[in-house]
Amino acid sequence: MQYLHDYILKEGRVLSSQVLKVDSFLNHQVQPTLIQEIGREFANAFANSQVDKVITVEASGIHIAYATALALGVPFVYAKKKRAVTQSDDVFSAPVMSYTRNETVDITVSKSFIRPGERVLVIDDILANGNAVMGLLDILQSAEANVVALGVVIEKRFQDGRAKIQARNIPILSLASIESMENGRVVFTDSEESKMEFLTKE
Amino acid sequence: MQYLHDYILKEGRVLSSQVLKVDSFLNHQVQPTLIQEIGREFANAFANSQVDKVITVEASGIHIAYATALALGVPFVYAKKKRAVTQSDDVFSAPVMSYTRNETVDITVSKSFIRPGERVLVIDDILANGNAVMGLLDILQSAEANVVALGVVIEKRFQDGRAKIQARNIPILSLASIESMENGRVVFTDSEESKMEFLTKE
Repeated sequence: MQYLHDYILKEGRVLSSQVLKVDSFLNHQVQPTLIQEIGREFANAFANSQVDKVITVEASGIHIAYATALALGVPFVYAKKKRAVTQSDDVFSAPVMSYTRNETVDITVSKSFIRPGERVLVIDDILANGNAVMGLLDILQSAEANVVALGVVIEKRFQDGRAKIQARNIPILSLASIESMENGRVVFTDSEESKMEFLTKE
Repeated sequence: MQYLHDYILKEGRVLSSQVLKVDSFLNHQVQPTLIQEIGREFANAFANSQVDKVITVEASGIHIAYATALALGVPFVYAKKKRAVTQSDDVFSAPVMSYTRNETVDITVSKSFIRPGERVLVIDDILANGNAVMGLLDILQSAEANVVALGVVIEKRFQDGRAKIQARNIPILSLASIESMENGRVVFTDSEESKMEFLTKE
């Protein structure tokens, strides 16, 4: 997605070979026209996948899930993060380790909002170690929902999120896949290669 | 806003005279077409207010701020919640007491994203005791930004948020203003009265 690649190259700040700041346009300050394009891109990719619902986890996936759900014409759900491990009959929950915050939180989804057999598209802003997405997949498994795919805006290909998610046979669509960030330079994964992998997987 | 009133009457669940659950369409599961209409409604109301930026606080204001910012053609910023009181030269921060979580969190905004003199529209999902909004107003004051107004989707008129915010001379636009919820029945504030108050204040 050229528009997104341009944003990353122009506005992204590489703080180390592992850390990319995209908080001027994606996950703190947000450029709405970019998000609208991202939502349309995901919606086009999954237009024929009979998506019933989009799911994400608060907070930085919310605007992206909304833009995607609007373009697909379906509702979306955002899992909530709670510190306390509150067992409840009314929610599905899964523990998620956050490295940036150095704590484990529970993410929860009300049982009312995910039904058995629903076809759910998982959306998030960034795929790195994949912990938050794995938590969502656990919840969707508990709910006996069908996971259509994972769509992420930016994938840090050099971290292990992809391997974990593919081990569950979930197709992944990354709109921007970053191969490396050595010496402050963002190198994208060859886009044709990414696309073919996705199509083959799906 | 009739479309929103209908949603509240049809889908909202009054759990007590104080508590209204709107998590099937507004702040857990979300109906995108409703949010799009809400964003357009705010954008129409503030079309001539020279808004430079929309601001909200994570998580449940994000999709609403996005829809509003998109319709206005400006960026939005969401304040982040952090548990640790991290003093930093790079962020504006304010403490916010959360009654639902029974803890005080810091909300923070990077100094890069709010500039002195910017005209900022504050958006949130629900106005009750107004604590989160007061935190945002503190941040905007530190940033020497100009607050255009507060726009909220649902106001619980019988709580004290409005009084606190009006004490700072900030106009408030509520798309749905709830006067009372006695005996499980939602009673809206007379809409003409709400509108006149807003126009007079502005």
